[in-house]
Amino acid sequence: MPHFRVTLSYDGTDFLGWQSQARGRTVQGVLEAALARLSGGVRVPVAGAGRTDAGVHALGQVACFRLERELAEGALLRALNGLLPEDVRAREASEVAASFHARKCALSKRYRYTLDTGPVQHPTRRRYAGHAPRLGHRERVLAVPPLFVGRHDFASLASAGGSVATTERTVLGTVLEWEGETLVFEVEADGFLRRMVRSMVGGLVAVGRGTHDVEELRHALEARDRRVWPGPAEARGLTLVSVRYEEGTPS
Amino acid sequence: MPHFRVTLSYDGTDFLGWQSQARGRTVQGVLEAALARLSGGVRVPVAGAGRTDAGVHALGQVACFRLERELAEGALLRALNGLLPEDVRAREASEVAASFHARKCALSKRYRYTLDTGPVQHPTRRRYAGHAPRLGHRERVLAVPPLFVGRHDFASLASAGGSVATTERTVLGTVLEWEGETLVFEVEADGFLRRMVRSMVGGLVAVGRGTHDVEELRHALEARDRRVWPGPAEARGLTLVSVRYEEGTPS
Repeated sequence: MPHFRVTLSYDGTDFLGWQSQARGRTVQGVLEAALARLSGGVRVPVAGAGRTDAGVHALGQVACFRLERELAEGALLRALNGLLPEDVRAREASEVAASFHARKCALSKRYRYTLDTGPVQHPTRRRYAGHAPRLGHRERVLAVPPLFVGRHDFASLASAGGSVATTERTVLGTVLEWEGETLVFEVEADGFLRRMVRSMVGGLVAVGRGTHDVEELRHALEARDRRVWPGPAEARGLTLVSVRYEEGTPS
Repeated sequence: MPHFRVTLSYDGTDFLGWQSQARGRTVQGVLEAALARLSGGVRVPVAGAGRTDAGVHALGQVACFRLERELAEGALLRALNGLLPEDVRAREASEVAASFHARKCALSKRYRYTLDTGPVQHPTRRRYAGHAPRLGHRERVLAVPPLFVGRHDFASLASAGGSVATTERTVLGTVLEWEGETLVFEVEADGFLRRMVRSMVGGLVAVGRGTHDVEELRHALEARDRRVWPGPAEARGLTLVSVRYEEGTPS
């Protein structure tokens, strides 16, 4: 009974997020439906590395599952892409050790947020980039990401209603660049709280608009109170770029 | 009664093209509907520079019309973006001379075609880029665009059923670049036949796949017979980038 790891890209626009729900279309749901068809109707539970929210995209989401039948990696990839809807594509498939788990074995994940800041957003960008006009303080924004780097309690940046054991996470690195009027923010961490990246971008927007300065954000982070942190950016600008595992293991 | 010229961006995915039709959603149709609301119900006929097909996008389509009321350029821009659907945005508005006509005064138009050639297209690209895997001859493709430059009879690249006075057009320039696995083709001409750019890209694909060589394409162009030219690429990869007018005139 082979274990597989697949790397998925998807357009999150028409999904209620990664995680299966009683009602509504989810990425996990369509993947499990495709795998059930591959398995003659047998249910194939899938674990994903990151539980992306509704509207959030992925370049390199990683999922793992066990099949009841032998199947070559290339054949699995072709079969999945034949069964999956067009807004989800399987990019890679590899057989891995039974001990592999897409979320538990992940060392870090990398997200990218794309934010258009021009007065009018191009219509072909509206599914894949947030929009925040009137960001006058373009240079000051660049001073925000260093606040996040390192081990911090990110309770101020978590969404309400989460039930995680700890709100501490380690941010391993960030990249923030202006590409013309578009702000591109990337962040890698050992884990993310729900809406954490979108809250980080909310902080960037607040500083860019001058409603907060960087010191105020620092205090808001230290307060560990989500009520003092600026609201999160829209989901549509967010993409799960990649998930990192230990080299060579456990596949 | 002021004449206006507006520059429009749109996502062509959910339109049956630019031109108004008896049934179905078109860009001209939603623009005329917005202008009618601005004009208290009076119909405002609009002329566009390029009649983009269903699924074709625009960065800089140009349209012109006459309003029965005085309106500042900035106020017109804001009002239009309040009335237009989200997949059409007005980027610029300026008052022009009554003699201005968006199509007749255009010196040239520039189109861009984006073609992903990797084995699996990223789902977030499928609305805005064509997909043609197995283009093995990456270098040979670069030799195709020079065939198009200059004055030619492009009858071989026109779609059936057109009723134009002449199928001669002048291609002023082309750009063809590989960006990783994506081929980006730009072409500027004094005018385009229907499906002409998509047929050009069909020629690129044929050479890239090795079903035609460059000399065969040259003969197919000279034959002035659309049956000998490779089929057109998908509409979704095509964007009307800009329209050029004489500097300063006729506004």
